[in-house]
Amino acid sequence: MSRRPLAELTRELTDVCMGRAAADRVVRGGRLVNVHTREVLDGVDVAIAHGRVAMFGDVSHTVGPGTETIDAEGAYLVPGLIDTHLHVESVMVTVTRFAEAVLPRGTTAAFIDNHEMANVFGLEGMRWMLEEGRPLPLKVFLAVPSCVPALPGMEDAGAELGVDEIREALGWEGVAGLGEMMNMPGVIEGDEGVHAEIAAALERGKPVTGHWSLAGVRDHRLQAYIAAGVDSCHETTSREDALAKLRAGMWVQFREGSTFRDVEALAAVLTEDGVDPRHCLLVTDDVLPETIALDGHMDRVVRRAIASGIDPLVAIQMATVNGAEYFGMRHDLGSIAPGRLADIVFVEDLDDFRPHRVLADGGEVGELPAFEYPPEAYESIRLARPLTQEDLRIEASGEVAAVRAIGVASERVTTEHLVVELPVEDGEVRASVEADIAKLASVERHGGPGTIGLGFVQGLGLKRGAVASSIAHDNHNLLVAGMSDADMLFAVQRLVEARGGMVAVADGEVLGLVELPIAGLITDRPVTEIAAQTLALGEAYRSLGSPIKNPEMIFSFLSLGVIPALRLTNRGLVDAVTFELVSPIA
Amino acid sequence: MSRRPLAELTRELTDVCMGRAAADRVVRGGRLVNVHTREVLDGVDVAIAHGRVAMFGDVSHTVGPGTETIDAEGAYLVPGLIDTHLHVESVMVTVTRFAEAVLPRGTTAAFIDNHEMANVFGLEGMRWMLEEGRPLPLKVFLAVPSCVPALPGMEDAGAELGVDEIREALGWEGVAGLGEMMNMPGVIEGDEGVHAEIAAALERGKPVTGHWSLAGVRDHRLQAYIAAGVDSCHETTSREDALAKLRAGMWVQFREGSTFRDVEALAAVLTEDGVDPRHCLLVTDDVLPETIALDGHMDRVVRRAIASGIDPLVAIQMATVNGAEYFGMRHDLGSIAPGRLADIVFVEDLDDFRPHRVLADGGEVGELPAFEYPPEAYESIRLARPLTQEDLRIEASGEVAAVRAIGVASERVTTEHLVVELPVEDGEVRASVEADIAKLASVERHGGPGTIGLGFVQGLGLKRGAVASSIAHDNHNLLVAGMSDADMLFAVQRLVEARGGMVAVADGEVLGLVELPIAGLITDRPVTEIAAQTLALGEAYRSLGSPIKNPEMIFSFLSLGVIPALRLTNRGLVDAVTFELVSPIA
Repeated sequence: MSRRPLAELTRELTDVCMGRAAADRVVRGGRLVNVHTREVLDGVDVAIAHGRVAMFGDVSHTVGPGTETIDAEGAYLVPGLIDTHLHVESVMVTVTRFAEAVLPRGTTAAFIDNHEMANVFGLEGMRWMLEEGRPLPLKVFLAVPSCVPALPGMEDAGAELGVDEIREALGWEGVAGLGEMMNMPGVIEGDEGVHAEIAAALERGKPVTGHWSLAGVRDHRLQAYIAAGVDSCHETTSREDALAKLRAGMWVQFREGSTFRDVEALAAVLTEDGVDPRHCLLVTDDVLPETIALDGHMDRVVRRAIASGIDPLVAIQMATVNGAEYFGMRHDLGSIAPGRLADIVFVEDLDDFRPHRVLADGGEVGELPAFEYPPEAYESIRLARPLTQEDLRIEASGEVAAVRAIGVASERVTTEHLVVELPVEDGEVRASVEADIAKLASVERHGGPGTIGLGFVQGLGLKRGAVASSIAHDNHNLLVAGMSDADMLFAVQRLVEARGGMVAVADGEVLGLVELPIAGLITDRPVTEIAAQTLALGEAYRSLGSPIKNPEMIFSFLSLGVIPALRLTNRGLVDAVTFELVSPIA
Repeated sequence: MSRRPLAELTRELTDVCMGRAAADRVVRGGRLVNVHTREVLDGVDVAIAHGRVAMFGDVSHTVGPGTETIDAEGAYLVPGLIDTHLHVESVMVTVTRFAEAVLPRGTTAAFIDNHEMANVFGLEGMRWMLEEGRPLPLKVFLAVPSCVPALPGMEDAGAELGVDEIREALGWEGVAGLGEMMNMPGVIEGDEGVHAEIAAALERGKPVTGHWSLAGVRDHRLQAYIAAGVDSCHETTSREDALAKLRAGMWVQFREGSTFRDVEALAAVLTEDGVDPRHCLLVTDDVLPETIALDGHMDRVVRRAIASGIDPLVAIQMATVNGAEYFGMRHDLGSIAPGRLADIVFVEDLDDFRPHRVLADGGEVGELPAFEYPPEAYESIRLARPLTQEDLRIEASGEVAAVRAIGVASERVTTEHLVVELPVEDGEVRASVEADIAKLASVERHGGPGTIGLGFVQGLGLKRGAVASSIAHDNHNLLVAGMSDADMLFAVQRLVEARGGMVAVADGEVLGLVELPIAGLITDRPVTEIAAQTLALGEAYRSLGSPIKNPEMIFSFLSLGVIPALRLTNRGLVDAVTFELVSPIA
């Protein structure tokens, strides 16, 4: 479909309002949720033409012979839901498959920060996803990833985005702002490159979206971050932090992802502190395919907000008009009102917010157009040479070695920097079931230097076998952990054959496999299918002994050097507090 | 002063927040009115640098040897007030003199629609005012006049702005949107030129400001107007109309001008209907110099809103953050928060909102830079030839003639279309004290065709003499009314000598004169001085017998053909319902 801007349609829409032309479709018998006034309006019908709302009220005069009538049967008519911050890659599917899964849930606009794709394929990968989104009934906007690579000098990702690349991308049609500014130290310490990126967005009048993940830090450092022009944040976990951000002029995105679920804690800002909710938004950030398949998308977040005591009309504003206003798109998005895109979600009950029908661009959502990723998108696992068992050897002398291990636990993205003693056998340190320590390797896979980082991880719970993933935030090299080097090799080989994905193996047998052949990150299979695969992979982790919830997600974060305390990249162990490379042998 | 954009200052501001550089100024001991959260925050200080707020909270570490400290002495600190719709020409002064008068009243940003100047000098005149505003501590933005001339084909103004001119102006720095779209029929009937103007603004992502003055009309016609992309309106006089506009996605500008005062009536939308106030704004539209001199500017409107029962914090939002968000300028305007321009208004009492100190761009307001209008600005009264008594003769035959007269009354901008019988003497119809009918003439004065329109006006109350004005909405030709042709001639001659303005004369003597030599609309004298002149002119009107309140304003509207029912332009009497020229003899 081609979506024409309002500027081209003003005459056509007035023609319909005035009865000079017929509406394409009218919705009768609904209860309009008016997010401008925060009211429910009974007894108003909606006339739709050219994919937009022409008018609401008495629309009888807009009905012509070709006008289709939809009977809302008393349902609430809610504006299409807007997710102002998410990573499609977390769902592990293409934008098309994502749209197919979330449109029936009422999400009709998504502001994607395709940071993971950018780390693998740079500007080119970002553009594929933007172009893929263009013909969809889901409105797909891009927030340009601002930190690629996330940890310059300490990892090798598939691309680097400098100020020039970011400035170029900010000029693309469909680009809404700068993506989450994770480089908090760079901002507040005045790094020139970081500030040049921010300036590039501000000069275009586009927002700079934030990521202030320092819980409890709400003093002059937070204000410095905001003074730099960053004016939204989805990394807020306490009421006090939310209040501080709102007061300082930030828009606070209440996040309800698969793992990080902040809505309940933040609801108190509205239910207890009673602040103006206009700058509060609902977002998903990262959701797993099974979350969408089983529980929904933005509808799930709205339900959560309502269940947390937020007035349903306010919760709906937080998922509609507030987001449209944040991104300066009120003419197109966020409300059911004259001129806006006719994205309308039908729900029976505002307290149990479950969409049963969705109009996008004024029509039912049919089959989505296919998008072909180019062949190179499927060739992202480019090892410098085949991995050997020798590559995995961590040498030490003596009988016992003090080794550094990354300590992990369920539902916690931070890690611990452990030093533990392990026996030395045959001049090397191996994984230990007793100590719950697996060997960990990060194998550069972007056709770069071919380096391999080695270390240990404590707490995965593996009793045998190995697990591997080409999703490894944010460098997305091949990350593999295991109790035996042979199984680690086997796991890597399987992922190379699958052209990327996540796998669990033991004794030369594949126990679970999620195939993600596009960029090693996503697939063009349906969300339900990939959800089944990820659930099965979780089972496989458990069968290997892992007690961790969402183990594949926790595993994929072991490379994430921007978050404390210890991580592994293809260049080695990163002390993620001092930002130094450290040796596995302490 | 040169105001640097935030994009250029992000590093400098973080330097101050982090203590690497000193603040220029800190404000201590105030109570911060937080318009984001709608709260008052005690015990927070504000650090200012580079004309912007660096941060608030504990700012001790930002104080250096050169930092100036301002003790707020417990005053509330309110963001600078924003007027999102006004005509500076109503104040009859230059932008500089306007700024000088309103800054101490707390108005720090003004979105001017210089429709009157545009009708005299077109793009050139608009640009003078924009350039005049640029170096001022008052932030001056332009809404490009959209209807010049207001009544094409039925009047001759000094300029015509077509789509090309409007498109050009929309690209100027400091242009915020399209000015009030008064051509309601053109919008809803689908006029191509009107829609091309709207499209030009929408394509630039700038709002199209409205003027829906059809009181009580809130059906599909209003929705057609909004569907065309017009999304604000300052012509709302009833609660029901306000509610309809808000629901349909318009931002409603509660107006408190000198003559039109809608705030009290509209307050009920908030105090009774309880709708979300985010899209409600406070504006002045048209205020006379004496109103500013005696009662204030936006501070006066805020007081009025509070006196009408609106929560003071909501009223302040309506004059600050809401306007900034309407125009997409939240990074610069509307709140006291990191990164924003440091426009801070000090008030002792929120219920009796009276600013006693104002910081603009972080500093006290000193002497304003002088702006020289070019010589041609002073040469706007360009009659084709000197007026003669013969030009004023309205001929008729018989003994009695039925003549058309414009019926006027106090505080009403609409007129009546009257037909009254007057005696014919010496083959002409003259003014009549008995019938309270004055003769009226509109003399083209822009160096154009030199035509003169003639008619009668009933209700001015003049017993003798004549009044004249080069402010005559919207064509601004020389409008003169009188009981004797000789005094009418004399009045016109005095205005020609004064290079424009307003005058009242009798028996060859000047009783009151307001000299407005720039464009025949404004002067570079102080507001207080012009206020004294206009008050004296009102006295002169009264001494001639006129009972009308603000008679000079009512008089200047006699040419305003866009508002019913009968008007006079230089082409003749305009039936402002059917939009036809009609003869003074019925």
